[in-house]
Amino acid sequence: MNYTAVKFVKRPTALITPDVFEVVTLETPTLEDGQFLLKQTHMHLAPSMRGWMNEDEDNYIAPLELGEIMRSVGVAEVVESRNEQFPVGARVFGPTGWREYLVSSGVGLTPIPPGLPAEAVLCVLSPGLTAYYGLMNIAQPKSGETLVVSGGAGAVGSLVGQIGRSADLRVVGVAGSDDKCRWMEQELGFDHVLNYKTANLQERLAAATPDGVDIYFENTGGPVQQATYERMNQHGRIIVCGMISEYNAEQLSPGPNWLDINRKRLSVQGFVISDHMDHAPEITQKLTGLFLSGKLKYRAHTLHGIESAIDGINLLFTGGNSGKLLVEL
Amino acid sequence: MNYTAVKFVKRPTALITPDVFEVVTLETPTLEDGQFLLKQTHMHLAPSMRGWMNEDEDNYIAPLELGEIMRSVGVAEVVESRNEQFPVGARVFGPTGWREYLVSSGVGLTPIPPGLPAEAVLCVLSPGLTAYYGLMNIAQPKSGETLVVSGGAGAVGSLVGQIGRSADLRVVGVAGSDDKCRWMEQELGFDHVLNYKTANLQERLAAATPDGVDIYFENTGGPVQQATYERMNQHGRIIVCGMISEYNAEQLSPGPNWLDINRKRLSVQGFVISDHMDHAPEITQKLTGLFLSGKLKYRAHTLHGIESAIDGINLLFTGGNSGKLLVEL
Repeated sequence: MNYTAVKFVKRPTALITPDVFEVVTLETPTLEDGQFLLKQTHMHLAPSMRGWMNEDEDNYIAPLELGEIMRSVGVAEVVESRNEQFPVGARVFGPTGWREYLVSSGVGLTPIPPGLPAEAVLCVLSPGLTAYYGLMNIAQPKSGETLVVSGGAGAVGSLVGQIGRSADLRVVGVAGSDDKCRWMEQELGFDHVLNYKTANLQERLAAATPDGVDIYFENTGGPVQQATYERMNQHGRIIVCGMISEYNAEQLSPGPNWLDINRKRLSVQGFVISDHMDHAPEITQKLTGLFLSGKLKYRAHTLHGIESAIDGINLLFTGGNSGKLLVEL
Repeated sequence: MNYTAVKFVKRPTALITPDVFEVVTLETPTLEDGQFLLKQTHMHLAPSMRGWMNEDEDNYIAPLELGEIMRSVGVAEVVESRNEQFPVGARVFGPTGWREYLVSSGVGLTPIPPGLPAEAVLCVLSPGLTAYYGLMNIAQPKSGETLVVSGGAGAVGSLVGQIGRSADLRVVGVAGSDDKCRWMEQELGFDHVLNYKTANLQERLAAATPDGVDIYFENTGGPVQQATYERMNQHGRIIVCGMISEYNAEQLSPGPNWLDINRKRLSVQGFVISDHMDHAPEITQKLTGLFLSGKLKYRAHTLHGIESAIDGINLLFTGGNSGKLLVEL
């Protein structure tokens, strides 16, 4: 059977242009013993994909090779099987790639509990591992502390804020549009929201954080970084989870002066969830519990058809998506 | 009995000018039961004093009040006593201030073991607590790792490098004069030394750190910061102990972009030794052991007479001192 896939064929210099990808037609192979055929139903697009495109030895996972099928995580259903553990109809979650079909023997795939919608798997479990580990395991918040999260309406940031609310933190969400701010305030229940594009960021941040900032969960970089840094309290913790404003930059912006890191005994910690996958089962259980009790809401921005990913990925960098960016196949 | 003391009477805006201080003559009071009279023999001058002079709620110890005797740590000898635990002739170490005599009941003072010269107390034990805790307890070095220490010929930095050598690290010391570099290389046994004022800092740092940098012990800020940051390895640790190049600055310099903190999972940790004084007895024992076995050398730059501190403190900011700055009274 023929199917469509998308290969990565050219490294971008700044923005991701369509010629970075090539659409190809492939054929599904005959199954061997222990294998099964998966039809992908949903895949997600994430800002980290931009980093994989650089030929950069310092990246935390190997760069994409030219000619390989574009990497991604998705939800798929077994449609043909020679493996008893993965019968026809079973749903799995894991690294799939930009392709309609794939053959697997099960390595790296996680079965999805019945009743959990595909969207929730991609919108809560996948970014939730990062959100939960960074906030709860690294920053170790104490009840009543103030949390500022940049990219607060993003896939990770929206979960960071909601997990923070359920841990009794005062949550300030920062985003780049009034629509995102309304969503954070009215649907997610954040205590304060700020549109960083409107004037007087420093003043308005000060008003939203009368007791200073104990935890800054950094997803974006940009002007909110310096403004929040200046509000940090003694023994504050800064979690550097992402810097989306810099991923396409040809020249990096400077960061804050380190004098306050010393004076206020701040800790600034970068992390990548793939280092901590031993915590995944325990965190997945906690996230599923929070989701089923209605404490974790999400907004999916769904594109349709595999080729929609090619232009669609740029929505992540223009802020044009409203919610976790998914492709329904 | 009359004695000389120096009060802090004016907050400096940038450099410390003589009118920041006032020389006064005071009289020693009559001793009460439990008190003793100390004659200070040596006091030290440290860059952190500049921070205390700012009226700044974010400082880690209370700012100096106008009219108070200038704060400092020193070595003193009991010359009159109504306290059996501190008999005449006993030597102590602790907060003394810029004064020739003081009356104490022993609070905050540490007895000095016989045989340890006053200079070694101020040059090894006092800055050594900071050096040891930051390098060994926070950065937790592994044998064979590469350590870069800025201000490597300074009071703290020179001990950081020597403690690093005794922990089997590859030590690169950075300083601002050829004389300091010679001392680090020939007397302290650092593996590589760099004068940051000479050209091609980045190239020469790269040559001195062929395996990258695992630990950066930051005492200074300035151009060495960005250059070293760019050489950090995955999971690198940056200890922000001081930022001497910024203490007198009216406008702070920007720091490095945070993208690498995320990508390389760096940790950037500020600390102040006064938070960790529960470790002091154990660290003091280790430092005394290292000193007595000849593994910790120091260079004292000694001024004479209490009033020499008034101009002398600026040597710390011009780099004009060669070694730990002491005043012998």
